[in-house]
Amino acid sequence: MSDILNQIGEVVESRAPAKGGDPETSYVAHLMTKGDDAILKKIGEEASETIMAAKDARAAGLSVDAQKKLVAETADLWFHSLVMLAHFGLKPADVLAELARREGLSGLDEFAARRMQASEKNGG
Amino acid sequence: MSDILNQIGEVVESRAPAKGGDPETSYVAHLMTKGDDAILKKIGEEASETIMAAKDARAAGLSVDAQKKLVAETADLWFHSLVMLAHFGLKPADVLAELARREGLSGLDEFAARRMQASEKNGG
Amino acid sequence: MSDILNQIGEVVESRAPAKGGDPETSYVAHLMTKGDDAILKKIGEEASETIMAAKDARAAGLSVDAQKKLVAETADLWFHSLVMLAHFGLKPADVLAELARREGLSGLDEFAARRMQASEKNGG
Amino acid sequence: MSDILNQIGEVVESRAPAKGGDPETSYVAHLMTKGDDAILKKIGEEASETIMAAKDARAAGLSVDAQKKLVAETADLWFHSLVMLAHFGLKPADVLAELARREGLSGLDEFAARRMQASEKNGG
Repeated sequence: MSDILNQIGEVVESRAPAKGGDPETSYVAHLMTKGDDAILKKIGEEASETIMAAKDARAAGLSVDAQKKLVAETADLWFHSLVMLAHFGLKPADVLAELARREGLSGLDEFAARRMQASEKNGG
Repeated sequence: MSDILNQIGEVVESRAPAKGGDPETSYVAHLMTKGDDAILKKIGEEASETIMAAKDARAAGLSVDAQKKLVAETADLWFHSLVMLAHFGLKPADVLAELARREGLSGLDEFAARRMQASEKNGG
Repeated sequence: MSDILNQIGEVVESRAPAKGGDPETSYVAHLMTKGDDAILKKIGEEASETIMAAKDARAAGLSVDAQKKLVAETADLWFHSLVMLAHFGLKPADVLAELARREGLSGLDEFAARRMQASEKNGG
Repeated sequence: MSDILNQIGEVVESRAPAKGGDPETSYVAHLMTKGDDAILKKIGEEASETIMAAKDARAAGLSVDAQKKLVAETADLWFHSLVMLAHFGLKPADVLAELARREGLSGLDEFAARRMQASEKNGG
């Protein structure tokens, strides 16, 4: 299971029109042909759908079905993140390395410190 | 690198107030104490920041610095997805399994088919 | 020009399926028939498109064309807000009254005060 | 009530740091000083909060309190749209004129036609 993001990242990359992906048969190639904004709009859209699925999951008392829906929407969000990364010349491993770096330094405390400082500085 | 999401998922879970996480010192515990909407708002916020970093990356000709920023914002988005999953009783492995399932069936073609059908049905 | 939001709000209301709007010929009726999530997803989507149009406008040095695009996206965002309000039993006048109330109290200072307090309390 | 958007637009403009707005005392000046991304991030954030308030309103059977919350979040979204417009050299009247133009042509049918065409073309 562990390398699934890297594996899907590779499949996604291979579907890029520049790599021979066919916009007629591949959703990823189709989306990449439409360009940056079409891909980025999906990030916003899937984030909204994840938020709504989470609200529904809570309202349903975290029922199995509602949680399945939330998992599916989060998968959509991550999947479109992978399409975006590939389209901008990046790999999931870049993001995972960044997460590991933050984690490695201090068990997320670096993250916490950075965030809490930001909270005090920026507010809202 | 591969198990980083699962590892961070475990760290995040251990920071839940119910597991003894301290909102005074842990960002994750702090956010979970604020509740569902505070966490979900972060998903929307980090999605917006990812979109803006991607626009900046393109405008900067995918410079190294701009790509680093995009990686950092995507890491923020995934990190807050992990906080959300933990808060709703789920694990990153659930999402990775869902992605693997889609992938496994047919190299993402199931995903493509599902999406393209949806496109025709729903429009915009 | 001034009452345009109220006027469009009325047109939108009249397109509700419950008021006889036809999903085959009216976009508003079509969207309302799809339900809450379809409408709310449009709010998230149009917000993302507004953000992208603003980034493009800045990158284009606020050119006339780029500003036209930003105006069009903001119009989309407001229009879908009107559809949402109608679908949830509200009117644009409710939102305008709320804005007037905040404004009236103290030239937005009430808003400022509330926000700045929130910033200090909540952070990020 | 009708001109409230234009009036608030003027107040917002007058709070721009370039017009003498003080970031220490004015929320609008504070936000504008932070720059484009801080303002645009608020659009994404307030859109997410509007979505959540609408989900809550439905779950609460459109209770008066839940509808008040939805009105307040929509007001926040529109208010930050006004800050964005001012920061990018635009006025609410530009957006209202665009909405009136669409409406005037054909009672929103132009909008409907454009959208439905887009649906067929773009899918998802």
